[in-house]
Amino acid sequence: MSAAPQRVRIREVGPRDGFQNEPEVISTDDKVRLIELLGATGLTRMELTSFVRADVIAQLSDAAQVLSRAELPDTVAVSVLVPNERGLDAALEHVDRIDDVSVFLSASQTHNAKNVNRTVEESLDGLSRVIPRAREAGLRVTGVIATSFGCPYEGRVDPDRVFAIAGRLVAHGAQEIGFGDTTGMANPRQVRAFFQAAAIALGGGDEIELTAHFHNTRGQGLANVLAALDAGCRSFESSFGELGGCPVPAGATGNIATEDLVSMLEEMGIATGIDLPAMLTAAREAQRILGRPLGSHTLTAGPVDWQAARPAQPAQPA
Amino acid sequence: MSAAPQRVRIREVGPRDGFQNEPEVISTDDKVRLIELLGATGLTRMELTSFVRADVIAQLSDAAQVLSRAELPDTVAVSVLVPNERGLDAALEHVDRIDDVSVFLSASQTHNAKNVNRTVEESLDGLSRVIPRAREAGLRVTGVIATSFGCPYEGRVDPDRVFAIAGRLVAHGAQEIGFGDTTGMANPRQVRAFFQAAAIALGGGDEIELTAHFHNTRGQGLANVLAALDAGCRSFESSFGELGGCPVPAGATGNIATEDLVSMLEEMGIATGIDLPAMLTAAREAQRILGRPLGSHTLTAGPVDWQAARPAQPAQPA
Repeated sequence: MSAAPQRVRIREVGPRDGFQNEPEVISTDDKVRLIELLGATGLTRMELTSFVRADVIAQLSDAAQVLSRAELPDTVAVSVLVPNERGLDAALEHVDRIDDVSVFLSASQTHNAKNVNRTVEESLDGLSRVIPRAREAGLRVTGVIATSFGCPYEGRVDPDRVFAIAGRLVAHGAQEIGFGDTTGMANPRQVRAFFQAAAIALGGGDEIELTAHFHNTRGQGLANVLAALDAGCRSFESSFGELGGCPVPAGATGNIATEDLVSMLEEMGIATGIDLPAMLTAAREAQRILGRPLGSHTLTAGPVDWQAARPAQPAQPA
Repeated sequence: MSAAPQRVRIREVGPRDGFQNEPEVISTDDKVRLIELLGATGLTRMELTSFVRADVIAQLSDAAQVLSRAELPDTVAVSVLVPNERGLDAALEHVDRIDDVSVFLSASQTHNAKNVNRTVEESLDGLSRVIPRAREAGLRVTGVIATSFGCPYEGRVDPDRVFAIAGRLVAHGAQEIGFGDTTGMANPRQVRAFFQAAAIALGGGDEIELTAHFHNTRGQGLANVLAALDAGCRSFESSFGELGGCPVPAGATGNIATEDLVSMLEEMGIATGIDLPAMLTAAREAQRILGRPLGSHTLTAGPVDWQAARPAQPAQPA
């Protein structure tokens, strides 16, 4: 394994990826309050919303209001997801509130077709226009590749195919590539090999940042983070409260919870820059607003407290 | 990291550790049915119950009936937990139905005092009689050390202290040592160092089997399994449906789910001998009997299906 890093970067994607998967519309006021709570945690990267057609994702139809109203520290790099040139046009109307844009496609043809009704080639062709325009506007660009570790429709996805797509995105100007385990199919052995190979294929993250986006669909999310860390990955995406993710399979949990990720990394002595109690405050408020228990474990258990003297008495061992 | 193993051993502890933490009494009929479903999964190790005073844990007061009624394949090594000599006496009345006994104490004085109202020395003194008597009766003995990775009352626990206690148990005749992360305080970096040191202190598992018992209290359970695997650990305990664990902190989830563990290991190419669909059948039946959603992720998501063509359509990437 590679030596554990001193510090990793975390992008909070809950306000986009989390909110968009909520069946009930969250008010713009509530979104802004949650985003500002997240902004007070020490996070330096947040994906705030997506400029998509309201008839596709009604939940994010307030993208412009969210962007213009949320007050965040200058230390937070704000990103938005844009699906195409029209989305980019809408985002560029708020270019003074945005630092990064994320663009996306799927590594597998079937997932891409079902998701955006295009072939992978057609998506890459569109991105060959979107990425340079975003760069020209002074924005940093992340290219996200969904189903990088497996496709629920096609099964195995060849890592070399994923790296080839990543190379195309880099050639168009993307400065960061996010690898999405969209339906939580990845396992740690696969992840370790994937990021070792990605470092060779794409330059080890020295020039192009390589980011892991894992889901906790089968409980392996943090184990996959550990494997990626071992293979040199230093950048992760997660969602507070374990919000969001992919609704395939139905009922499955999605993203890894930011507070569980922060708890693990900080306990390992790896700095995240994120204040865990502040993150739990944001997740707790999300739980209150959404009115149901969220999947985050640390939200229930609280941080590890090595100095604690707790009152309750456990019954039996191990 | 050490090379990943071809195979690991898993002991299912749900019928003891899981059931004992259920607030509503489970009927003996239901317990026997669940145990027999577990027995049909390929499991070779199951902890079926505990011989404790009924006024301490009413849920397990049917230990004798469970043991005598459950029909399991000959390939399953049946273990029971005994807290003391009186418990061993009760277990020995069913010695023909038992292969192993597990005995326990805590590494930390405060947890041991709260759990069994003894000092660690007093517990070790008692076990110096229990373990040899169990061995003389032809039983295999596992010594379980709770709070091996941290104590909710005392905080840090010195690994050397844990290994010293393990050495005492081995000297009394224990053939396996289980290290319990009783309230889910362990992190992967700590776990890796712990099992590397344990292998040196206790002989690397060649003669004395070293078993990891992790909790998923803060979502790190499977990451800790991965770290232990990397450090050479080849034996794990888990609980179907993510049942059980420790009620500290209040509301926290406990054991790692056997089906999540099996899913991860088998996906990594590490054989468990356990049939995942059969394990999901057992967990699903537990969920039905208990009447609430269980914490297991794979129970919701289903196994990874690399050949699948799923009908649902995900909305957006990553």
